Amino acid sequence: MIRAISVIGTGLIGTSIALAACRRGVTVFLSDRDPVAARTAAALGAGRARAPAVPVDLAVLAVPPSQVGPVLAEQQRRGLAHCYTDVASVKSGPERAALRLAPDPSCYIGGHPLAGRERSGPLAARAALFEGRPWVLTPSPLTSDTALRRARELVALCGAVPVVTQSASHDEAVALTSHVPHLVASLMAARLSGGPEGVARFAGQGLRDVTRIAGGDSGLWGDILQSNATAVAGVVRELHEDLSRLVAALDALARPDGRERAHGMRAMVDLLDRGIAGLTEIRGRGPGVPEHGAHIRVTLADRPGELPRLLAAVADLGVDAADAIVEECGPAGREGLAVRFAVAPRAAGRTVARLAAEGWDAGWANGAYVDQYEEGPALPTVRT
Amino acid sequence: MIRAISVIGTGLIGTSIALAACRRGVTVFLSDRDPVAARTAAALGAGRARAPAVPVDLAVLAVPPSQVGPVLAEQQRRGLAHCYTDVASVKSGPERAALRLAPDPSCYIGGHPLAGRERSGPLAARAALFEGRPWVLTPSPLTSDTALRRARELVALCGAVPVVTQSASHDEAVALTSHVPHLVASLMAARLSGGPEGVARFAGQGLRDVTRIAGGDSGLWGDILQSNATAVAGVVRELHEDLSRLVAALDALARPDGRERAHGMRAMVDLLDRGIAGLTEIRGRGPGVPEHGAHIRVTLADRPGELPRLLAAVADLGVDAADAIVEECGPAGREGLAVRFAVAPRAAGRTVARLAAEGWDAGWANGAYVDQYEEGPALPTVRT
Repeated sequence: MIRAISVIGTGLIGTSIALAACRRGVTVFLSDRDPVAARTAAALGAGRARAPAVPVDLAVLAVPPSQVGPVLAEQQRRGLAHCYTDVASVKSGPERAALRLAPDPSCYIGGHPLAGRERSGPLAARAALFEGRPWVLTPSPLTSDTALRRARELVALCGAVPVVTQSASHDEAVALTSHVPHLVASLMAARLSGGPEGVARFAGQGLRDVTRIAGGDSGLWGDILQSNATAVAGVVRELHEDLSRLVAALDALARPDGRERAHGMRAMVDLLDRGIAGLTEIRGRGPGVPEHGAHIRVTLADRPGELPRLLAAVADLGVDAADAIVEECGPAGREGLAVRFAVAPRAAGRTVARLAAEGWDAGWANGAYVDQYEEGPALPTVRT
Repeated sequence: MIRAISVIGTGLIGTSIALAACRRGVTVFLSDRDPVAARTAAALGAGRARAPAVPVDLAVLAVPPSQVGPVLAEQQRRGLAHCYTDVASVKSGPERAALRLAPDPSCYIGGHPLAGRERSGPLAARAALFEGRPWVLTPSPLTSDTALRRARELVALCGAVPVVTQSASHDEAVALTSHVPHLVASLMAARLSGGPEGVARFAGQGLRDVTRIAGGDSGLWGDILQSNATAVAGVVRELHEDLSRLVAALDALARPDGRERAHGMRAMVDLLDRGIAGLTEIRGRGPGVPEHGAHIRVTLADRPGELPRLLAAVADLGVDAADAIVEECGPAGREGLAVRFAVAPRAAGRTVARLAAEGWDAGWANGAYVDQYEEGPALPTVRT
């Protein structure tokens, strides 16, 4: 059982860990190369801004990736703790440095909580920052069972979900999911610096979202990117090839020749479709949305206001109106409209019953729709 | 005064315009090449799914960019309306097509409401979609005063803010602020398609934000990008050059030689800093945040819990805790902490008074801090 920890580096992540540990009754010691930052964290209730008198159970090194090895070696020599972990967003470099520099590398296990905020510093810290978030742990070949167990305890104290993997796998994954996205946001935002006058008026939510993460501290990010340069360069090179194809496609689309334009359009739509496919990889299906929903169909009476009224009724059941599908029904010459939507199978019976009780002409959609659904676009589902 | 309009194309934008116009008492006629879509819009209360008996005041062509010219020519020949506008997100191509194809191009004015949702189709429509959003109008050299006036009336009916500019300026601006960001999101998302197994576990909010807009319909986006291919290609070419520099910087960062690494780091930090500069171009200063705030400083008593209590107190005054600055104060050996933050000048007096009334040791920060502020990072400001 962890009774005392030491947090080195009281920025956003270090202070948030300290706050979470304090709330669970752990004694926390705080330090930072900026003494005011450590005292600020202490004033927030995140622990004591001093060194422990005896070695603590676990020290958390919340320092930039390039500092993990040197700080680990220094603190181990001083006997700060029995075990050590870090929170850097790159793992291979710190692991190599630990194996090379630390007096006893078996006490060290790499760590990376996948959580953050746009704001940095102790004042932005939150005890709940890690709740439900993945926290990657990367034991080296030398890491002891004790170090792994203590790190798992810390993850549990913070309410996070441990993901144990190798440092190299971690670094390849975050190159793709974190480091290259940051660079892409920066590249896009850089195009706006010194752009035409007044262009900001045309900025919408899409642009804001694409560029949001470009705001991070350039010094810290430079350190992160240097520490993971090889993996990041691999992904960026593929991006560069795609971008070369994109330039060729755009050039073809701008030409008068119809055949060239058609060729450019195929390449363009292929890129856009690959993007859509990539999105579904990361979004997946939302929690609680079953692979095969039950399908309900409501036939509308020919009265004004029936469709908004039905959409409000199904919204109460958790269906997003924009997910429903409207279709024609009834005999030729007297066509009406019907609305179709999917619900979780076990919610289907009571959904039909509730709609019928409210006076709607509701029933199960027939097999043809189910087949269409399995092939077609994702349909909405009532969460149960 | 607009009394009747016709909306051709009852997708998200067309139906939203129709809903907004109906709410203001305008008679709206709806059509779509998919009759069920037009009837769905009508069932939502967006108008009547039929052609008008006499020409309406204004027809809104809510069709893809490549269709604006042909649909305009066809409807003008039928005498659908006295004036015409469109809502396509590209303006030069439709304008050229209008000048070439329309029987009377003086009746046409290009338009582009800068609003949207991730969802498409009439069921996603909202009467309030355009409220407070810019709506670009691009009169051609032939556009009549009547057409411009009617289009302005439509913008006002929808609660949007008119921005009158030339079609070429519009297209250059949206290439930078909308079309290239979409491509950047697609390029990033495409890297995730067929990526390593389990990589989705590492996806955080940053990646989701960067890639969010990649989900749009690839057919419609292909059309948009073709219609603005020249302007988009210009920006993408600059992006390609930056990406080439980025690859070189990453390669240098991965090398063992210290001088090469230092060179790579300079190039990397330069790119990241240009990204940060670009972000401030589009974010600007928030509404109500003055250029020069008044600075307030609160000295904390040496008691536990004082800092969280103060942050809660200033949060009530509209200051984000993460924006405050903590600094050392007091004589050597008996250092304490003080918290500094900025408020709008006219709010400063009462802020100090309120804090003092609550028992805080609050006062104006001295001139040194004001100087620091003007040079240094943005400080928080109480909105008044």
